[in-house]
Amino acid sequence: MIRDLTDDEARRGLVLKWGTTDPDVIPAWVAEMDYALAPPVAAALHDAIEAGITGYPRFETEGGVLGEAYAGWASRQFGHRVDPEQVVPVVDVTAGVRVALDVLSEPGPMVMPGPAYSPQLDVAQVTGRERVDLLLDPDAPRAEIDLDSLDQAFADGARTLLLTQPHNPWGRVFTRTELEGIRDVVVRHGARVISDEIHAPLVLAGAEHVPYLSIEGTADHAVAVVAASKAFNTAGLRCAQIVSADTATHRRLTDVPMVRNDSWSPLGVIAAVAAYTDGDAWLDALRVRLSSQRDLLARLLAQHLPEARMRPLEATYLAWIDLRAYGHDDPAAVALERGRVQLAAGHDYQPGLTGHVRLNIATSPERLTEIVHRLATALTPGTTSNS
Amino acid sequence: MIRDLTDDEARRGLVLKWGTTDPDVIPAWVAEMDYALAPPVAAALHDAIEAGITGYPRFETEGGVLGEAYAGWASRQFGHRVDPEQVVPVVDVTAGVRVALDVLSEPGPMVMPGPAYSPQLDVAQVTGRERVDLLLDPDAPRAEIDLDSLDQAFADGARTLLLTQPHNPWGRVFTRTELEGIRDVVVRHGARVISDEIHAPLVLAGAEHVPYLSIEGTADHAVAVVAASKAFNTAGLRCAQIVSADTATHRRLTDVPMVRNDSWSPLGVIAAVAAYTDGDAWLDALRVRLSSQRDLLARLLAQHLPEARMRPLEATYLAWIDLRAYGHDDPAAVALERGRVQLAAGHDYQPGLTGHVRLNIATSPERLTEIVHRLATALTPGTTSNS
Ligand SMILES: Cc1ncc(COP(=O)(O)O)c(C=O)c1O
Ligand SMILES: Cc1ncc(COP(=O)(O)O)c(C=O)c1O
Repeated sequence: MIRDLTDDEARRGLVLKWGTTDPDVIPAWVAEMDYALAPPVAAALHDAIEAGITGYPRFETEGGVLGEAYAGWASRQFGHRVDPEQVVPVVDVTAGVRVALDVLSEPGPMVMPGPAYSPQLDVAQVTGRERVDLLLDPDAPRAEIDLDSLDQAFADGARTLLLTQPHNPWGRVFTRTELEGIRDVVVRHGARVISDEIHAPLVLAGAEHVPYLSIEGTADHAVAVVAASKAFNTAGLRCAQIVSADTATHRRLTDVPMVRNDSWSPLGVIAAVAAYTDGDAWLDALRVRLSSQRDLLARLLAQHLPEARMRPLEATYLAWIDLRAYGHDDPAAVALERGRVQLAAGHDYQPGLTGHVRLNIATSPERLTEIVHRLATALTPGTTSNS
Repeated sequence: MIRDLTDDEARRGLVLKWGTTDPDVIPAWVAEMDYALAPPVAAALHDAIEAGITGYPRFETEGGVLGEAYAGWASRQFGHRVDPEQVVPVVDVTAGVRVALDVLSEPGPMVMPGPAYSPQLDVAQVTGRERVDLLLDPDAPRAEIDLDSLDQAFADGARTLLLTQPHNPWGRVFTRTELEGIRDVVVRHGARVISDEIHAPLVLAGAEHVPYLSIEGTADHAVAVVAASKAFNTAGLRCAQIVSADTATHRRLTDVPMVRNDSWSPLGVIAAVAAYTDGDAWLDALRVRLSSQRDLLARLLAQHLPEARMRPLEATYLAWIDLRAYGHDDPAAVALERGRVQLAAGHDYQPGLTGHVRLNIATSPERLTEIVHRLATALTPGTTSNS
């Protein structure tokens, strides 16, 4: 069911990931997958273009076909009850985070667990806020949000937590207990949460996504920003959703001038509705594939880069790898130059961090094998990779 | 070359304009055209979807294929030399206006000639600015920007003029002399101009578009926000462009964090490139059609609504009609209720204005004829429309 793109297909279709690298480079950086579109999504887009749906979307900000589709999806996928009337389209997830901050949050600083999705490192500043980082200790055995530090950040004046869950690049799926702990701290300070759940459909075998809004006592202080775009490879089609569970919050989001939030595309809506309505079976197959890629990566690292350190990848197809043992400040640059494989540099996610990379496993087993071989050869020249 | 959509096609393709009105209503409101896509644009989109171009765009903010395509277009269409390196993609025109205000303008008030494109009435406020209106006298024989009022607005502290040219809903194409007059006032006050030129390709027979940046002495105080989307019916595909003519300005626009401007779609880029590269012949045919629709409207109004007043429509397919003589505060509401034709209400473009409508002529001659018949019947019940 998951069809691997050929190199040629990938170069034509994935215009950023493959289209901006030299032909001898294997790209494993930006969060896109080297797989053909899910058939229901491809069919819906094909029909939409044939019908000439290239103009403005309906500008529905309550319910409609998108709200219904997301509510059905959330119920089937996460056992989570969403009010279809409270699903607000927005052009993309990061824009949704910005709107939520602008419209819902008090002006105080925003707390952000890091390393973090790089473009969002600037979202606080763009809304006129300070960013307070809760940085992971690279040596910590488990990637966790430290509740004492969170408490301190709020005590010092922060008013919003940008929670990414599942977390990129931590690869973590926070448990119900962890989320309840976060909620307790937030509630104690009367603060707000923006829960970026774009990776929720990408929880791998062994873990389970708990929507933050499904935790009791979160409705009046949180919104989730969700999208089908990461799991279904449609980030360029431009439609994410802000979900609330409280009509006052919903009203604040929809009472804004159009100019704040009217850039989503009807094709993004159509892709999202197709994914949410008919995408379950394909997504199941995708998760099986990604889980097996994850296991393959573990075997490959053990064999070829035994000093690489990686915490369990519970979700996303983005492996966060500690390569400090190999002695390069910027292993991604070394990998590109010597190995012709393009990874994302750790310092993009945490300025100043050395020795880390993020590696995208959403490709074929053959390419993943070659990626790790090349990386190993680049980092350990002289050693013959014992493939 | 211009193919009229059937009602069924329009209802499927134009999901806002046709998809949100009752089946017995003829929609003539939002700025979309009841014509099939230009064949080169349709073909490019078809190929893009077949190739699976649904992910992130290349994020090029200098030159690239889009800059080259726009520069070629500006040269052929307007005799205007644009530096392809200074064409910055942005998700849509209104978002481009917002970015330009946020990034380039000082915090003082923004001057806006009105009545004006309604969503942009809020753009000043969203960027934390006051809006100063330069309102047209409904009885003025010609729609002009009053330079003394503009001068006064700047003297009172305004720092930016949002110039819409060609102007919607005025229907005006400002002449070189008028633009030079504006420039002189702006320069005297060291203010800035954002020139929204989305309607530039839609200049009808008898007028000529002069890009504001083609006027001497504007490069260091102005940017243009342009798009193929209005002339080619692709507003939902999400790619407009900010054009500068000064490298310092360009650098300020591209030095912003991604989160400020990274939501444009690769399909929007593809549609824009196809339009700018291969769209000239289709656009010529479109302008012929729209010019003839304009003439038809004049004849229809003279016959059926002789007291309607309209200034010459020099550009756009949006006719601004003064219906005060018929005695209804909200003639659009009357037209919808009694005539089952949906026009845009004048007060959307100038809060508080009565007796005006904006009527979209970009349809078939048959539909335009029926629209005016229905409007006449609605406004003058009892009178038999002598069709
Ligand atoms: C946590 C997170 N949020 C948001 C995004 C991007 O979403 P969008 O392109 O819709 O802004 C990503 C992309 O990988 C991500 O990892
Ligand atoms: C003057 C003007 N600017 C901008 C727009 C809308 O452009 P966009 O949808 O790209 O924001 C319109 C739409 O009709 C318009 O008339």
